[in-house]
Amino acid sequence: MEAGDALDREIDAALPALHAELFELLRMPSISTDPAHAADVRATAEWLAERAARAGFAASVEETTGHPVVLARHEAAAHAPTLLVYGHYDVQPPDPLDAWDSPPFEPTLRDGILYGRGAADDKAQVFLQLAAATIARAQGALPVNLILLFEGEEEIGSPGLSAFVRERAHDLHADHILIADSMMYAAGQPSLILGMRGMAYFEIEARAGAHDLHSGQYGGAVPNPAHVLAGILASLHDAERRVTLQGFYDDVQPPPRELEAAWRMLPFDEAAFRRGAGGARLSGERGYTTLERLWVRPTLDVNGLLSGYTGPGKKTVLPAAALAKLSCRLVPDQDPARVEAALRAHVARVAPGDVTVTVRLLQANAPWREDPDAPLFRAAASALEDVFGTPPVLVAHGGSLPIVPDLRAALGAPVAVMGFALPGANMHAPNEWFPLDHVATGMKTMVRLYDRLADT
Amino acid sequence: MEAGDALDREIDAALPALHAELFELLRMPSISTDPAHAADVRATAEWLAERAARAGFAASVEETTGHPVVLARHEAAAHAPTLLVYGHYDVQPPDPLDAWDSPPFEPTLRDGILYGRGAADDKAQVFLQLAAATIARAQGALPVNLILLFEGEEEIGSPGLSAFVRERAHDLHADHILIADSMMYAAGQPSLILGMRGMAYFEIEARAGAHDLHSGQYGGAVPNPAHVLAGILASLHDAERRVTLQGFYDDVQPPPRELEAAWRMLPFDEAAFRRGAGGARLSGERGYTTLERLWVRPTLDVNGLLSGYTGPGKKTVLPAAALAKLSCRLVPDQDPARVEAALRAHVARVAPGDVTVTVRLLQANAPWREDPDAPLFRAAASALEDVFGTPPVLVAHGGSLPIVPDLRAALGAPVAVMGFALPGANMHAPNEWFPLDHVATGMKTMVRLYDRLADT
Repeated sequence: MEAGDALDREIDAALPALHAELFELLRMPSISTDPAHAADVRATAEWLAERAARAGFAASVEETTGHPVVLARHEAAAHAPTLLVYGHYDVQPPDPLDAWDSPPFEPTLRDGILYGRGAADDKAQVFLQLAAATIARAQGALPVNLILLFEGEEEIGSPGLSAFVRERAHDLHADHILIADSMMYAAGQPSLILGMRGMAYFEIEARAGAHDLHSGQYGGAVPNPAHVLAGILASLHDAERRVTLQGFYDDVQPPPRELEAAWRMLPFDEAAFRRGAGGARLSGERGYTTLERLWVRPTLDVNGLLSGYTGPGKKTVLPAAALAKLSCRLVPDQDPARVEAALRAHVARVAPGDVTVTVRLLQANAPWREDPDAPLFRAAASALEDVFGTPPVLVAHGGSLPIVPDLRAALGAPVAVMGFALPGANMHAPNEWFPLDHVATGMKTMVRLYDRLADT
Repeated sequence: MEAGDALDREIDAALPALHAELFELLRMPSISTDPAHAADVRATAEWLAERAARAGFAASVEETTGHPVVLARHEAAAHAPTLLVYGHYDVQPPDPLDAWDSPPFEPTLRDGILYGRGAADDKAQVFLQLAAATIARAQGALPVNLILLFEGEEEIGSPGLSAFVRERAHDLHADHILIADSMMYAAGQPSLILGMRGMAYFEIEARAGAHDLHSGQYGGAVPNPAHVLAGILASLHDAERRVTLQGFYDDVQPPPRELEAAWRMLPFDEAAFRRGAGGARLSGERGYTTLERLWVRPTLDVNGLLSGYTGPGKKTVLPAAALAKLSCRLVPDQDPARVEAALRAHVARVAPGDVTVTVRLLQANAPWREDPDAPLFRAAASALEDVFGTPPVLVAHGGSLPIVPDLRAALGAPVAVMGFALPGANMHAPNEWFPLDHVATGMKTMVRLYDRLADT
């Protein structure tokens, strides 16, 4: 494609300067969870807004209930489609520091790999979005209305973003939403994510009395809440590892047939997956592959257990209470509220009467799945195939990104998640990395995507 | 009984001086678990040995692998029976300090109740043993050979005592063993303890992989060790709250018929028991009373649970491992080794193959039950009835005192446990207390006990 090729040359020519800018961005410790870094977070937002304004965008730092949002806009034409690109400029804390091979906020290049906190999640990806739009705009090749929305609270759960987007829904109206925060399916294999699981996160507490007791003085004569909790938890799966909550699977919608078929053909590196899982064996709900268990089947997993004495050695204590944290990963069209009701009913049915059992909902967000035939997917697939020489795989993801259903609901547009990090990028871990050449690759994909979308 | 009456007058006359001595003993912070108090522990041992030597006993501070043992001996005659009285002079830490109404190591008298750390457990009881023997000896009324053995490591599990007693078994030969460290069944109702439960304490760990995982990236596709652990724990009791381990009840011997009958007639203050239990409801193995559940039935109780994330709020983690601490209280003639084997076999049978489950034994000690017709019980019952005006109840105890089977095995003599603290004495808690008049009551009981035993 000729327009793409011309822009590619511009991109390649700009790379040395762009890399220097990216290094500057990576040096800013925009750790959103740490109040001591609040000024660094704001400075990062201002850096991005200034960079966008210098490139000619209508750029602003917008206040939220927490860290600010950066907006940068380009108006192509009233009748042109509008693309909203989401990313985040905040990062996870770098701990444990001594596990880094180079300082987390001193970006370092080794063998073409860029190391630093935020390299993959999500600063290189935010930066390549801004850089691609800058070059396309300068070359008169940005035929879509573009809204870049970069938030500063993704790593703390985006507490202010939903309200911000709802309040500004008119202003942020878009026809397509792209989430620029993820990774490719494999090196050399681009991917587009069209679905993620939702979540319902609970705490269950069983309580017998006000305080722990001596197991010699009371053992056998009072109920043990840890037994009650174990009984409840053990009752939540059957022998085939299916969740036993009444109606749990009633609303589960399988993905389109052609996707199911395609996913069965996807190469899956079981050994690598097990290495990533700390050597755990692969097992789960009977009758499904690992990818199906992750992408299209809901789960119920205990996330934590706490009761009585947990230190070294022994203490002959009867616990007064026992606590479990557990969460369901949900798939379309499961409703967290229905799952909550089913869990409460189940617990009420199986818990004995001599212990008080409390269920608390800590988080609920809906699952999300997109139509793979939406114009955004066709445009993005075409752009990716042009750059990588191979069409992307359309995949789902087992995790949850609450902002996706929120953005979709507030703005009423389909969402695609596309990213250029690679599996094993150490997001949230020491030695986070991003392949430096993917800055250019990502930019080249984006300039093609603008072009394809303008035709929709 | 006239000899008793004469000695009673001597005891009453000595009380003001004895109380002052007891206060002195209670001021010594002999906290055995805290290395910073090692010198205080030793000073307390030396104080007791000096006090005994001054009274004419052959007294010594004996080294062990840890804190020392105090021995004080009186030889009546070669053919006289030998009574060994066990107590301990070490105490629990006083924390939490701010919950005390008066300083823990400044003994304080309020309404006839003596408050201070160690008042009930076990310094007043150790002291009254020494004081009773002193007065009886001075009056030529100590017709038995007496060995007072006071250890300094009871509150840390008596790690050195078994070896000490085994090594010195010849030297410590006794015909009767009295444990002077317990409480009466109720105010005004003396009691003798003739049995305690044993224990087998375990850790069970289920492990899937080397580290915790992100529940979005892996949830559903790898086994969850917390589910496995819950399944194991839930399988350990049936619906009647009986332990399901194969053969668990095979060796259980009911107590003598007349004891069973007597225990059904014992007054039992259920409301007070529930208050002590922090308001917990009373329930347990079907078909047994609360006292039977505590005294003659074995248990299996979870003492602790730990897995994954247990802090406030939520973390979407799949635990790599899940840990339970659990322990069985055992009754005659259960054998901790057989229980361990049954638990290992049970876990091997019910645990799925995709998670590694490890069972570790942390402690094992045998249950103990004495013949209520042994001369020691008849002598002690007669002495108690003479002093309290009512015969003692013969009871069991749900707790475990590993030194009892150890002493019994090493010295080959029957054991009775007799104490003068009252229920609710706040042993191991703030505001520990002992009724001051029980110093005299206890001494009067002991001088009668010497006399009765000499006739056996």
